[in-house]
Amino acid sequence: MIYLDHAAATPVSAKALKAMEPYFATEFFNPSAAYLPAKKVAADYEAAKDTIAHAVGAKGTDLVITAGATEANNLAFTAVAQHNYGKDEVLYLETEHDSVRAVAQRYGGKAIRVLSSGLINLNDLKTKITDETKLISVSLANNELGTIQPLAEVAAIIKEIKIDRYKRGIKKPLYLHSDASQALNLLDINVARLGVDMLTISSAKIYGPKGIGALYVSHGVKLSPLTLGGGQEKGLRSGTENVPGVIGFATAAKEAKEHLNGNRKKYKDLKRILLSGLQGYELINKKHTLDNFIVLCYNGVDAERLIYLLEDREIYVATGAACAASKGQKSHVLTAIGLNNSQIAGSLRLTLGETNTAEQIHEAARIINETVAAERKRING
Amino acid sequence: MIYLDHAAATPVSAKALKAMEPYFATEFFNPSAAYLPAKKVAADYEAAKDTIAHAVGAKGTDLVITAGATEANNLAFTAVAQHNYGKDEVLYLETEHDSVRAVAQRYGGKAIRVLSSGLINLNDLKTKITDETKLISVSLANNELGTIQPLAEVAAIIKEIKIDRYKRGIKKPLYLHSDASQALNLLDINVARLGVDMLTISSAKIYGPKGIGALYVSHGVKLSPLTLGGGQEKGLRSGTENVPGVIGFATAAKEAKEHLNGNRKKYKDLKRILLSGLQGYELINKKHTLDNFIVLCYNGVDAERLIYLLEDREIYVATGAACAASKGQKSHVLTAIGLNNSQIAGSLRLTLGETNTAEQIHEAARIINETVAAERKRING
Repeated sequence: MIYLDHAAATPVSAKALKAMEPYFATEFFNPSAAYLPAKKVAADYEAAKDTIAHAVGAKGTDLVITAGATEANNLAFTAVAQHNYGKDEVLYLETEHDSVRAVAQRYGGKAIRVLSSGLINLNDLKTKITDETKLISVSLANNELGTIQPLAEVAAIIKEIKIDRYKRGIKKPLYLHSDASQALNLLDINVARLGVDMLTISSAKIYGPKGIGALYVSHGVKLSPLTLGGGQEKGLRSGTENVPGVIGFATAAKEAKEHLNGNRKKYKDLKRILLSGLQGYELINKKHTLDNFIVLCYNGVDAERLIYLLEDREIYVATGAACAASKGQKSHVLTAIGLNNSQIAGSLRLTLGETNTAEQIHEAARIINETVAAERKRING
Repeated sequence: MIYLDHAAATPVSAKALKAMEPYFATEFFNPSAAYLPAKKVAADYEAAKDTIAHAVGAKGTDLVITAGATEANNLAFTAVAQHNYGKDEVLYLETEHDSVRAVAQRYGGKAIRVLSSGLINLNDLKTKITDETKLISVSLANNELGTIQPLAEVAAIIKEIKIDRYKRGIKKPLYLHSDASQALNLLDINVARLGVDMLTISSAKIYGPKGIGALYVSHGVKLSPLTLGGGQEKGLRSGTENVPGVIGFATAAKEAKEHLNGNRKKYKDLKRILLSGLQGYELINKKHTLDNFIVLCYNGVDAERLIYLLEDREIYVATGAACAASKGQKSHVLTAIGLNNSQIAGSLRLTLGETNTAEQIHEAARIINETVAAERKRING
């Protein structure tokens, strides 16, 4: 098997799994219980939150643990319509993941355009910010292209606007939220340096367990809980804590930081091998992209057919986001960067990861070349 | 260690943990991905949902998987304010868990009173139902007392009202929701027999993993998603599926059904041993209670002190719901059944479970007697 879809899912690392194990059947206590073994579990849980937070330059108390990135993104948008400073407006990048797009649209959000590079159109951003804008959501790295957005530049624009609002006596807050689900093990993330007020991170994308994510929330940002109940996570996310999940996430986050440079170098090397080995493609995500993302277009070929043909050779690739692909929708991301229907239909997303070796990538290039050549021959008769 | 707090948390069973294991690092694929190994994971996930649903007499397609009982309870209440049949009213039992109480109160819900037995006051229920009532939430078994509510009787009352509404041309739906988190491994549950429209179940209370629960939703009930995104769970709960969690939940649910009668007999026997061994207590939950719930009152003694004294002897018990206890609040459940402050302060909740043996229970009775006697001696000088 050659797995080239690490943006869709990653296996849980051996270390993360080992760290989780005691918390299933031995240290299983409810962290809210009053006796010592439960308090120890609660302390382990808080320590794990600290570890996760440290991976983005924050403290554990700045995090709200969620069931994943989708819930974290949804929670971030509860910042809207909190105060009584009149109508709240929301802006989001048009290439965001559905978990941002859908909730932004629920709040009547306006889309910020991207350039053909996939990067945010900063002029469009500036034009669309009004005195009513309360929340701007721009992912750190796109989930279909891996495009890394210039968040610090976005934050600088927001800072200027906040200063101007202050001068004019406008009290409405302006928050920057970023979905960093795809980036935690590929970029050196620091919330202060990025200038974000909220940041979404995910365990399942960084070799931690599924069903766990977190939202970093800076001081002063007021959110509303999506679920009410026992008051866990400072009342922002009730429900008995998923202790093994958080322990696994913390271990994965720590590993991600430790191996960041090594992994980036590895993925750069593998990407070079792949791109020099492959034939007859157009590279879509040329610049400003995560080291493990390769989006290729095979003009005139149906990428969905390629997926099935490659599956027979035990090579697993994607056409776009797994959740969008399963609904048979045309990628809104590839549309946004100006690809035509034929290009979109011929686009493959290959995302490298820890399961890959150089040998595998040589082999993958050979088999993909064969498969595309056979398919082109079949089509052209 | 003698663990007597199985209502707060249960260890993951060996079978459940074993069933989950392959899905962490081997069958880790995103169920929404297009290639065969991912589709196999999606099929395993759906089969697991079927297994969970079968444990309550339903089909997998009737379930919405959530991150736990709290989220499931919150999701159930989205049934309110869905249609345009005028104002929606909500009723809930006053002894419900915070995850029902808090969300019911957000919707302006009115509390249905309980009798001193802890059972629902059916007359109060009848009085409070109006033509505006849309949702009634009554737990199957209470989380502090184990009181089993006569849900079929509640459902019969609701049925009469629905017939009457139909005759009078009133189109507003009337739904019965029940939180059955505490009961899935202690009662033979069947949604049709109970007459519920929605039912909350939880993995963490039945020797499955934490961070997983489900809401059974009967046909025709319209809900709104708490989180938007990739459209998983028929659009009602977006986010990459927690596959290992659901597999573990399914295994635990299957075991719960298989061992139901054996476990009930075991807990009845252990309860008898405990109650005949203990001295100087008042039994609070005398009747209509789950076989593993024992709520005792030691008049004049501070139960919170008892918890710490018993902790030294490695006996772990609770005063009430773990989440309420951690906030130092007086139990709303014990208040509702008419206990005075002194009785509430002296109340212990002991919940038996699979980790317990007869030998342990004899030992626990002896140590609790010693501890209470020493404490009474200390107080009375």
